Amino acid sequence: MSGVVVPIEGGRSPKAGVEALVKLVRPDMERVNAIILAKAGSNVELIPEIARHLIDSGGKRLRPMLTLAAARMCGYQGEHHITLAASVEFMHTATLLHDDVVDQSDMRRGKLAARMLWGNEASVLVGDFLLGQAFRMMVETGSLAALNVLSHAATVIAEGEVMQLSTAKNLETNEDEYLEVIRAKTAALFAAAAEVGPIIAGSDKPVISAFRSYGMNLGLAFQLIDDALDYGGSASALGKNVGDDFREGKMTLPVVLCYRRGTDEERRFWRESLEGGNASDERLADAIALLRKYDAIDDTVARARHYAEMARDALAPMKSSAWKDALIEVLEFCISRAV
Amino acid sequence: MSGVVVPIEGGRSPKAGVEALVKLVRPDMERVNAIILAKAGSNVELIPEIARHLIDSGGKRLRPMLTLAAARMCGYQGEHHITLAASVEFMHTATLLHDDVVDQSDMRRGKLAARMLWGNEASVLVGDFLLGQAFRMMVETGSLAALNVLSHAATVIAEGEVMQLSTAKNLETNEDEYLEVIRAKTAALFAAAAEVGPIIAGSDKPVISAFRSYGMNLGLAFQLIDDALDYGGSASALGKNVGDDFREGKMTLPVVLCYRRGTDEERRFWRESLEGGNASDERLADAIALLRKYDAIDDTVARARHYAEMARDALAPMKSSAWKDALIEVLEFCISRAV
Repeated sequence: MSGVVVPIEGGRSPKAGVEALVKLVRPDMERVNAIILAKAGSNVELIPEIARHLIDSGGKRLRPMLTLAAARMCGYQGEHHITLAASVEFMHTATLLHDDVVDQSDMRRGKLAARMLWGNEASVLVGDFLLGQAFRMMVETGSLAALNVLSHAATVIAEGEVMQLSTAKNLETNEDEYLEVIRAKTAALFAAAAEVGPIIAGSDKPVISAFRSYGMNLGLAFQLIDDALDYGGSASALGKNVGDDFREGKMTLPVVLCYRRGTDEERRFWRESLEGGNASDERLADAIALLRKYDAIDDTVARARHYAEMARDALAPMKSSAWKDALIEVLEFCISRAV
Repeated sequence: MSGVVVPIEGGRSPKAGVEALVKLVRPDMERVNAIILAKAGSNVELIPEIARHLIDSGGKRLRPMLTLAAARMCGYQGEHHITLAASVEFMHTATLLHDDVVDQSDMRRGKLAARMLWGNEASVLVGDFLLGQAFRMMVETGSLAALNVLSHAATVIAEGEVMQLSTAKNLETNEDEYLEVIRAKTAALFAAAAEVGPIIAGSDKPVISAFRSYGMNLGLAFQLIDDALDYGGSASALGKNVGDDFREGKMTLPVVLCYRRGTDEERRFWRESLEGGNASDERLADAIALLRKYDAIDDTVARARHYAEMARDALAPMKSSAWKDALIEVLEFCISRAV
């Protein structure tokens, strides 16, 4: 099925959709992984220990794959896409470490979060170290344009996280406000990861914009599917427990939709649960029942599909290639996780 | 007295020693402050609020002054020293925000620490935002050499902080190990701040090295004096309570020296205090008495003076100027805080 564009509507088994991309980027990705291991090294013992805990914990490396694929699809023949892909993954890893501290999460990708093993202090500082290394690697490429895009993304991600702090337990958050948060905290890095590919390939502005748009919309779809999975996926598939967002009082799109569609009494239930912290397992079951009653999970997936379609169309003007097909299949993979 | 090199041995009133530098950099510093205020801005309300809490809290802005002075002393006529100085201050501010979370500090520069007012979460994230803004500003200058120096400093600072985590309550830490920590966590940013001045001025390698060395040794002296003040200065002069390091179980040079010079019984006292967390005000008084008994505070100041002298000699080959005199006087200021 590789190379064939599959309609996003089709239900496929998870993982199938990234296979083509994984195969295409494999030689490059091996070099990215080698750089990641080398640059996570430090004479300060704790640093490689923590960094490797995260790096080895089986993330999909979707973001660096975007950088590699985008650069190759634009005909890039140099080495800098490897370095930039490693930078992107480090930025992501740093964000995860800081996120876990901010969210006080116990688990990350099905393993104990680093902060549970080494403390909040080490998570903050190793995150800072990885962010510093990410910038050093970008500087190595000598591409000021790539540095501009990625350093901008770093500030936008932090802004998004701060926005999330204030929307976290605020049930008046509407869909647009929520989108603004996830555009910043999640989609901006996907966008930057994709955009730096054509940038180092020396592509024209419309091509750079196309990849940026693809990455941004893929990122939005990815986050919305994550939100849906937190109320509907199985714990094993997600690598964390269902209901984490509920217990942390996080506003996500399923809740935004359900709250606005519900009765006064149902709204009181959400306020007590998310703002009031009354989020027992029994109440989680009630929450999921309410989400189903108002089609809030299905509609979140439908919204995600909308952004996946926008991402697909962003690449439409690009000429056909195995790379392009693989990037389209990633959209399919993303949606298929929740259906 | 401006323009006259004062012997470092002389006891002068605090602040006197930075006046010449402050006066020389004033026009540039006003522009740095304007940039700092502008770049601490964000549509996300919490960000400027927290950033300004720190920015307005009366830090000396010593690090950005180094960048400005170094650039001007090397004849730089452009604009980029302003931007780089603001970057340096943002890197420093980001470090302070993360430090307070790591150290669980209640106070910062005589005010409540940001984390006490807005929570650890916001401190971590606003620190990330400011670090991102720092990199964006560096990118604006287009100087890859400056980017290289400052991004390297960012990783070294984080490494130093992680090292400090492991040495924190470890009384076996020796002077060399302690120096390695403060070289990374404090002196590296002073060194980078000074080094980027001649870099954007296009100076020769020996000049760049001279400023790096000046900054590094000033940074070491500065930190050692801070350590001495924590056991000997007055609370008002320091902007934080005497004994913070003691209560946090932090290894600093006065303790390193005193522990190694003491009796078995005295060593037990230090272990119970710093490792065991038995650090009451009464025991702080005992600790200060022990430090005095072994001249540990005076000898820490003497060590600081050694680095200040190294810093002075680093600039020795540079031709005389008001800038050079002002930078030498900063060394004097640094030492005079503790005598």
